Amino acid sequence: MRNDERKVKDLRAIKIETDYIKHPEGSVLIEFGDTKVICNASIEDRVPPFLRGQGKGWITAEYAMLPRATETRNIRESSKGKVTGRTMEIQRLIGRALRSVIDLEALGERTLWVDCDVIQADGGTRTASITGAFIAVVHALGTLVDKGKIKELPVMDYLAAISVGVLEGEEIVDLCYEEDSRADVDMNIVMTGEGEFVEVQGTGEEATFSMKQLTTMLELASEAISELKLRQKEAIGTWASAIENYKEREDQQ
Amino acid sequence: MRNDERKVKDLRAIKIETDYIKHPEGSVLIEFGDTKVICNASIEDRVPPFLRGQGKGWITAEYAMLPRATETRNIRESSKGKVTGRTMEIQRLIGRALRSVIDLEALGERTLWVDCDVIQADGGTRTASITGAFIAVVHALGTLVDKGKIKELPVMDYLAAISVGVLEGEEIVDLCYEEDSRADVDMNIVMTGEGEFVEVQGTGEEATFSMKQLTTMLELASEAISELKLRQKEAIGTWASAIENYKEREDQQ
Amino acid sequence: MRNDERKVKDLRAIKIETDYIKHPEGSVLIEFGDTKVICNASIEDRVPPFLRGQGKGWITAEYAMLPRATETRNIRESSKGKVTGRTMEIQRLIGRALRSVIDLEALGERTLWVDCDVIQADGGTRTASITGAFIAVVHALGTLVDKGKIKELPVMDYLAAISVGVLEGEEIVDLCYEEDSRADVDMNIVMTGEGEFVEVQGTGEEATFSMKQLTTMLELASEAISELKLRQKEAIGTWASAIENYKEREDQQ
Amino acid sequence: MRNDERKVKDLRAIKIETDYIKHPEGSVLIEFGDTKVICNASIEDRVPPFLRGQGKGWITAEYAMLPRATETRNIRESSKGKVTGRTMEIQRLIGRALRSVIDLEALGERTLWVDCDVIQADGGTRTASITGAFIAVVHALGTLVDKGKIKELPVMDYLAAISVGVLEGEEIVDLCYEEDSRADVDMNIVMTGEGEFVEVQGTGEEATFSMKQLTTMLELASEAISELKLRQKEAIGTWASAIENYKEREDQQ
Amino acid sequence: MRNDERKVKDLRAIKIETDYIKHPEGSVLIEFGDTKVICNASIEDRVPPFLRGQGKGWITAEYAMLPRATETRNIRESSKGKVTGRTMEIQRLIGRALRSVIDLEALGERTLWVDCDVIQADGGTRTASITGAFIAVVHALGTLVDKGKIKELPVMDYLAAISVGVLEGEEIVDLCYEEDSRADVDMNIVMTGEGEFVEVQGTGEEATFSMKQLTTMLELASEAISELKLRQKEAIGTWASAIENYKEREDQQ
Amino acid sequence: MRNDERKVKDLRAIKIETDYIKHPEGSVLIEFGDTKVICNASIEDRVPPFLRGQGKGWITAEYAMLPRATETRNIRESSKGKVTGRTMEIQRLIGRALRSVIDLEALGERTLWVDCDVIQADGGTRTASITGAFIAVVHALGTLVDKGKIKELPVMDYLAAISVGVLEGEEIVDLCYEEDSRADVDMNIVMTGEGEFVEVQGTGEEATFSMKQLTTMLELASEAISELKLRQKEAIGTWASAIENYKEREDQQ
Repeated sequence: MRNDERKVKDLRAIKIETDYIKHPEGSVLIEFGDTKVICNASIEDRVPPFLRGQGKGWITAEYAMLPRATETRNIRESSKGKVTGRTMEIQRLIGRALRSVIDLEALGERTLWVDCDVIQADGGTRTASITGAFIAVVHALGTLVDKGKIKELPVMDYLAAISVGVLEGEEIVDLCYEEDSRADVDMNIVMTGEGEFVEVQGTGEEATFSMKQLTTMLELASEAISELKLRQKEAIGTWASAIENYKEREDQQ
Repeated sequence: MRNDERKVKDLRAIKIETDYIKHPEGSVLIEFGDTKVICNASIEDRVPPFLRGQGKGWITAEYAMLPRATETRNIRESSKGKVTGRTMEIQRLIGRALRSVIDLEALGERTLWVDCDVIQADGGTRTASITGAFIAVVHALGTLVDKGKIKELPVMDYLAAISVGVLEGEEIVDLCYEEDSRADVDMNIVMTGEGEFVEVQGTGEEATFSMKQLTTMLELASEAISELKLRQKEAIGTWASAIENYKEREDQQ
Repeated sequence: MRNDERKVKDLRAIKIETDYIKHPEGSVLIEFGDTKVICNASIEDRVPPFLRGQGKGWITAEYAMLPRATETRNIRESSKGKVTGRTMEIQRLIGRALRSVIDLEALGERTLWVDCDVIQADGGTRTASITGAFIAVVHALGTLVDKGKIKELPVMDYLAAISVGVLEGEEIVDLCYEEDSRADVDMNIVMTGEGEFVEVQGTGEEATFSMKQLTTMLELASEAISELKLRQKEAIGTWASAIENYKEREDQQ
Repeated sequence: MRNDERKVKDLRAIKIETDYIKHPEGSVLIEFGDTKVICNASIEDRVPPFLRGQGKGWITAEYAMLPRATETRNIRESSKGKVTGRTMEIQRLIGRALRSVIDLEALGERTLWVDCDVIQADGGTRTASITGAFIAVVHALGTLVDKGKIKELPVMDYLAAISVGVLEGEEIVDLCYEEDSRADVDMNIVMTGEGEFVEVQGTGEEATFSMKQLTTMLELASEAISELKLRQKEAIGTWASAIENYKEREDQQ
Repeated sequence: MRNDERKVKDLRAIKIETDYIKHPEGSVLIEFGDTKVICNASIEDRVPPFLRGQGKGWITAEYAMLPRATETRNIRESSKGKVTGRTMEIQRLIGRALRSVIDLEALGERTLWVDCDVIQADGGTRTASITGAFIAVVHALGTLVDKGKIKELPVMDYLAAISVGVLEGEEIVDLCYEEDSRADVDMNIVMTGEGEFVEVQGTGEEATFSMKQLTTMLELASEAISELKLRQKEAIGTWASAIENYKEREDQQ
Repeated sequence: MRNDERKVKDLRAIKIETDYIKHPEGSVLIEFGDTKVICNASIEDRVPPFLRGQGKGWITAEYAMLPRATETRNIRESSKGKVTGRTMEIQRLIGRALRSVIDLEALGERTLWVDCDVIQADGGTRTASITGAFIAVVHALGTLVDKGKIKELPVMDYLAAISVGVLEGEEIVDLCYEEDSRADVDMNIVMTGEGEFVEVQGTGEEATFSMKQLTTMLELASEAISELKLRQKEAIGTWASAIENYKEREDQQ
């Protein structure tokens, strides 16, 4: 049924390259099969106006695609003069998800700018963006610790995301573009390393789905995200122990 | 715990006034407590360019708030010169949800424009919009049947929506604004009359939630939507039987 | 000649509902026949930059229509990304008219935001807006007096507006949409309770008019506005005496 | 009282230069004292979409100021990315006024583009624009007659405009900028050569005016416009008789 | 070969009128044949944010055309809501060129706004703009000296510009529109009074050019600019000696 | 003098990776030292409106930078809602340059869309874009030949670009960002494989340059471009002979 002989539970080949671009504080190239996203995290030493003077940080995400990331060329949003609804939804999702695992008080009055730029698209660009952005964010926050600007890494837990769906009546994980366009139900799940949900977004475009289908999809997502967590752990190297430390400190309180 | 002595399962007082504005083909004023939304459905005898010549219809939704629908005045989006991300997400959601229960082929090459204008806001404006818009759409489609332009009402099932959330550790339904701003988890559920899911959107803003909490919220939503379906049935009057007929025809095939 | 058997001097049925929306400081639903406008007045405790530090207040008006206020659906100005010339003209007119009867020095460094949202249109929406907005403004300013923020109601006189025109050679008052579209001359008159002019805007679209016609229209308008003043007096209740007091104080100086 | 020793009835020095710019079909530089406006009329052989196929023409006006037409530099509207409300009001006024004296059916399916560009401003720019634009339009329409594209000049009457106002309690005509900024009432009158009104726009900015003041201002305007008509007659040269002929043909019918 | 019998080295008739508009600190109408540009220079007593507190001034240029400066009417950039790439390139060029001969430190924390408005276009509008703007700038800076705000005229050298090109294989100077549209190579040269280059912009649109052609064009430009310098010297009158003084002071250091 | 011990004539390390992104017809990652640009060429089977029906093709270029391509994060142009003047100048330059070596008649009614996206910037992004885009264009045009849509590769000659400048009085080639920001003169040269100029753009930002300096810079550029041509030849593989063939056919005519 799947177009690349994957089983329903199989993720595509995942590659993660850190320190990809030299200027950003954190920079990752993440690949899920043919989907390739550059995730850059930048630190700015001030917060947006609505947060000033509260001693708390903020995370803002932006998402874009190169015009030829897709099979037919898309008009640049800068040429159109406005950002589409789809782009806005995705960048709001990425920002919200990251904010759920970063300790914004410990971050202090700083803004993390997260840029996810899709250079090649083949389905699952928003979930790849979240998964890669988490790694870039850990690296960027690490530079703050290294420079002594903050004492501990303000990362409360891992964060990863995956797409699931229903295709020809069967629940599958990590849909490529071709599968996605044939699927009846399309769902994006964001979870923490502890297995808690951060976002659950399921949509039956011109279709509906049952409680049973929902449950199966949530299980598939949960397993996939456990796998992604292991890949993230490798990619953040020595910072992994800082995340464990954070949890322990929390448990002791 | 709830600020108006409601129990966790209680909906607010719901009022539905049909034929509210004289010009639109379908027009409803829907109230969930202090949330008041005018839902107008308009029919246009052509479809957007990407659908032309396919013999299929389309549904587009727009959502807006009056500047003083809220406690402090909001800048008009027309003055800002652009629509916010929040508005875009909501109008994409409303349109997608309605398209899941309308038979677009039977509608023919027509566009249904659905306008949801919040004149007073107190939480749950997007779910009230969907619930009211469904009624306006049935009325608008009814005028097509009455004029003999289409033979049967192209409505496959009821469609309603409700918000659920976790407040102080407890799952509750139909959150007012004050509850919503204190809640850890915020979820919007759209379901059909048959109890199938159309959209499941759960977000832990700077928080997360467990599988157990998710299940409880889905159950609360399911009960609430059964109640809303009854209110919709009243409001669409004689068209209720047309929806039953549609389902029967489907079952026989 | 008139499509609803009115005589040339007859106003349509006028309804005024105060405290219509709960959040704004002043809120009115005003109806002239089938024309329905929500007029909300909001108080902000600062003035635009060009007035800062002068101890003087300001009034800004915004005007909009719901897409289906009219017989065929209008594109939302927020979707277009800009406000039309017609809307700008109307909101400049409403603001200017209100400023002529409000004592801006007595108001102090505050801005009154006046939002006129037409939910159903049948001609005369700008004059209904001014007439209703005056009432909303009095209510909003009343809350400032009630809270002891200003000592006296800073309202110098009543303010109302009406449309007049020439239809089939005859001068008529309060044109509905159908009459307006057939009329040769279209005129909007704004007057104070004392019968002074605030705005006189007469236009012969692809037509012209004589001095005699102008004089007759001004008389019709003057009578209509006396009637509207009585309706406003009822709607502002006890604040009516505060307006009389203001005039007396002025006369004594 | 007046800052240049003019009497209340006196117009400023008026200069009219025709064929000012070489490319447009009609081009006029008009000066009222220190107010200088380039009025260009262009002919396009098609009409806007809403008029297509009706055999009728259209007139569209645009108005702008050079950034240093005024004492302090204004930001260019092209830099701001939008046209102000004031500009929109003025260009709508110019277009509407011109359409009242041009026989749009006789013009045929053509658009007259009228550009009024203020190169130096000292009050009365919109009335100077209308007065100058009329001349440019006659010249442009004359080229159509000369080329045999239309048989007769489709100009039904002269059209000119002037400002009047109330300054220190006295009614005056043709206000310069300094007078305008001190005036209590500001009025713009557009009239035909026959002395009929086309537009009457009177505004009491933070002030009001009586019926008596209105009448005096209208008389002042009427006299001034008779004078302007004579200046226009000179400037259109041999086309003056074509306007007389049009009126005669009309009277005979 | 040239359409007005000019020789390859001949400039068109040049006219320069100073004090053209009354409000700006410096105002020039410059004509190169049928190309006519109003160049206004305005002084503002502050600098853009990126320069604040550095004790240094800035020069910003804006360039525009009247809609009928050209043979067919152009849409106004204010109507389009954005400035074209061509306009941006030209205004960046004008500002950059002027900044190369003005002593920005001596100017102090002030901005010179230079507005070049083409009222009639026949080729070479950008080079005419630079040549005329230089004169307007000298006049504007002169008012600062006259008022005692700065001690010496902060003008380091003359600045003028000319177009050169290759037409039918021959290098020519000061191309009119008709020549420009037939030319294979189009080049704009900006030079100082001392004969140094400030900008060299050569373009072979769908063509290329050799080193030899480039050299010949540069020589033609150099001669033309010497001529323009003489015309500028006349137009700036007594300020000419101030420029010589500046150079001497520099040489002595 | 140079910050990486290069001699004045030395280019940085150049890397060219073809077939970089899978969707575009031609795709190249080009690196000049730390400057990295993705150049994608796409073919669309129609031309812009101004060229329709002329049997001729067109080339349009777009240029952008990722927000963190630079040392400090840049605001996305899509967020700003408009493209900056710098971006417009660069994309106009790239398009114009490519059009000078492509035989647009032989291309037929097709548009080549060239997207240059800088993922890491360190000076010379526009010249790297042109050099890389040429290769992507050859690959894209090659697919048209391979599919039999056109008979011969419509490439008339090689095209490459390089920056030169004057730093501390010495002429140097291929400036990195740090050198560029210290340089007095900044020049970009585009040349063909035959050594003809296509674009010469030299700017003395707050400085000027002499004829002698100009000549030296042109020579440096010429040598560098010969080197770049060799690298391009390798990267286009078998298509190199098609370019030679084109020239021979031309010479024989």
